[in-house]
Amino acid sequence: MPSHKPIRVALLGCGTVGTEVVRLLTDQAADLAARVGAPVELAGIAVRKPNKHREVPADLLTTDAAALVASDVDVVVEVIGGIEPARTLLLDALRAGKSAVTANKALLAEHTAELSAAADASGADLYFEASVAGAIPLLRPLRESLAGDRITRVMGIVNGTTNFILSGMDSTGASYGETLEEATRLGYAEADPTADVDGFDAASKAAILASLAFHTRVTAADVHREGIASVSAADIAAAKALGRIVKLLAICERVPVGGDGEGADAGATEGISVRVHPAMIPRSHPLAGVNGAFNAVFVEADAAGEMMFYGQGAGGAPTASAVLGDLVAVARNLVQGGRGPRESAYAGLPSRPMGQTPTRYHISLDVADRAGVLSQVAAVFAEHDVSIAAVRQEGRVDDASLVVVTHAATDAALRSTVDKIGGLPVVREVVSVMRVEGEET
Amino acid sequence: MPSHKPIRVALLGCGTVGTEVVRLLTDQAADLAARVGAPVELAGIAVRKPNKHREVPADLLTTDAAALVASDVDVVVEVIGGIEPARTLLLDALRAGKSAVTANKALLAEHTAELSAAADASGADLYFEASVAGAIPLLRPLRESLAGDRITRVMGIVNGTTNFILSGMDSTGASYGETLEEATRLGYAEADPTADVDGFDAASKAAILASLAFHTRVTAADVHREGIASVSAADIAAAKALGRIVKLLAICERVPVGGDGEGADAGATEGISVRVHPAMIPRSHPLAGVNGAFNAVFVEADAAGEMMFYGQGAGGAPTASAVLGDLVAVARNLVQGGRGPRESAYAGLPSRPMGQTPTRYHISLDVADRAGVLSQVAAVFAEHDVSIAAVRQEGRVDDASLVVVTHAATDAALRSTVDKIGGLPVVREVVSVMRVEGEET
Repeated sequence: MPSHKPIRVALLGCGTVGTEVVRLLTDQAADLAARVGAPVELAGIAVRKPNKHREVPADLLTTDAAALVASDVDVVVEVIGGIEPARTLLLDALRAGKSAVTANKALLAEHTAELSAAADASGADLYFEASVAGAIPLLRPLRESLAGDRITRVMGIVNGTTNFILSGMDSTGASYGETLEEATRLGYAEADPTADVDGFDAASKAAILASLAFHTRVTAADVHREGIASVSAADIAAAKALGRIVKLLAICERVPVGGDGEGADAGATEGISVRVHPAMIPRSHPLAGVNGAFNAVFVEADAAGEMMFYGQGAGGAPTASAVLGDLVAVARNLVQGGRGPRESAYAGLPSRPMGQTPTRYHISLDVADRAGVLSQVAAVFAEHDVSIAAVRQEGRVDDASLVVVTHAATDAALRSTVDKIGGLPVVREVVSVMRVEGEET
Repeated sequence: MPSHKPIRVALLGCGTVGTEVVRLLTDQAADLAARVGAPVELAGIAVRKPNKHREVPADLLTTDAAALVASDVDVVVEVIGGIEPARTLLLDALRAGKSAVTANKALLAEHTAELSAAADASGADLYFEASVAGAIPLLRPLRESLAGDRITRVMGIVNGTTNFILSGMDSTGASYGETLEEATRLGYAEADPTADVDGFDAASKAAILASLAFHTRVTAADVHREGIASVSAADIAAAKALGRIVKLLAICERVPVGGDGEGADAGATEGISVRVHPAMIPRSHPLAGVNGAFNAVFVEADAAGEMMFYGQGAGGAPTASAVLGDLVAVARNLVQGGRGPRESAYAGLPSRPMGQTPTRYHISLDVADRAGVLSQVAAVFAEHDVSIAAVRQEGRVDDASLVVVTHAATDAALRSTVDKIGGLPVVREVVSVMRVEGEET
């Protein structure tokens, strides 16, 4: 059995995830010791309010997180969230050669460079599997299993709250506002849902995924971000009518940069596009069936082909499972020697602005039912060099609906096209405009 | 850029996978060097027939695999397959302190203990992601990402050939024989398909998965194995009629051992059941949609909940991607110091024989259409203590069909029940007997 001295762990934060981390560390003490080769001991738990009721040993609680980090601990596990004091505490730990495990996506999406530099300087480990897609093993596959391949695309549903809302809108036909209210009532959305519904949470995760997939430093500022607040019942219905469904997608892909944006330009160099926005995908796409609070991520690589990872993207126990997996890895490294993979940002690929990114649009219009409408609308597309993939026109008593799905064109060209069409006298209303993903372009 | 001396690699075998390994090592040389921190150089390729045409540098070929392993190389990559000479060559490498990467499921399912002992004795690494489910990162998640959790079940489709055949039978209604012939013609089945269709390949993979999931040494001999050769068009049709589909499943689960086999026995201790057999699963189950040569594996863990991993389970490039991922890990360890996780067999859980394993049966009978048939059949179930979940009886002109789906009972009790029912004078024919998985018991 283990002969190595115990690995001492400081836990920073004791909310839903922290409480589960404590429970797993306690319940599985014997198993963890056998897997690590040394007992894993909880040295202390830093909290802001020590008197709040928690299912953890009261004698381990402290309000002095800095002192806990500075004490005789080997590993610091951070589940506080937010930038400060998490950033300072983790930097202190790493600078002192203590390994760190964090679930903090917002911090990583801003300060990975600083944290990694501190880890590299002292030789400490920095693991953060729990920061993206909860329990789903995703970061380790990206940075280790696929390290010998060339990842071309990562696309997925990485925010459970918005997926719950969009799934609800799709199944009931209700508005965004009504469905958000329901999600809040059921505890799937927070009282202030901004971080989720405006796409900040997904954008942080996209930055982390893109950094690992493309060996490039990507921060939240590099991510084009659109939330779901403007997704209407009409958008959902328009998607349904075409056998599609609306999802909030995080998309990270290799793209040509500096050419004309059409993808096959020989003058372009390699870059990346990282973005979060709602999009229609075919109902036959594997991501279409990912409902409620679940997460799923598609990964495409040159040699491996397409892969999908699916599971619970949030929640105390699933997130704690990912934290514990990292803790075991860090503890094993302390016992056996060695380090986990460092930050790998050698490729330094440029980010392409959204306007230059090729994408496809679905546009649904209410138009006057008279001859020549289609030719007027089609002329605007042609003028902007946007090629049309499919058109569906249906007459009604006084007017008609016209649905256009485009081939890939730059986002800027598509935006201008939509603006111009909205101004045509024959167009009564632009009912729905949404990007289309998950199909051949 | 890299300042460490080059990592020298010996490649054993140069078939479909080996050729792709060479291609990826060559095409991605600069990327791999940046990721590893040192150039990764191919020192030689051992083949049996050096004059066969291959898309690899001829000057690297040698027929003396033992000499190549003994030469100045740091890592040995084995993609020969089969037990010998792969076993001896890998043992030689590991004993000499050279790390090993292998895709050899048959070897690992028999000799992991011996290989791991050699690796531990010299401090070398042994990685084998490519041995199960091709490109899908699965072993690393099991042995690293979920190392802080308690995995309760691993269930999946891990053999592409049999999945292709069963998918074909389901979509065309054709017999096993016809569909196998078609699969052979299209190159999805080998000239001698025994290893695939009789479940040997899947059983090796199940042994590897169970070993990692349960920290227990499991060999192919511990795996209950049934292939698909006896799956009939009637089985497929019976499944379809009930909204189910037939898949060859590899199932590894924690079960109680030594009690009465019913699962909740307080006198039982913890054990495992590892088995490969065809089973009906609901068409709504995520594994039901895994078609053709694709693989998918469900993992359940106490804290993480349910996860699914999906992708290409075979083929040169996907398998090579997994080999390269391991090679990068091994090379990083050589550059940075440290080792990957060792074999972890501390739990030593006993395997439960199939007869004691609780499972559910779907039984389809042709019976005489007269009063009392159902009561006679039901009596046999009651006699064997097998509880019935659902019955469907349909009359025809001269006879009737009777379909019974049971609740969970031990496999032995179910077998005896079926034997006895087959002998009842009112039963004309036992049309189909198949286990049911993927539903609440």
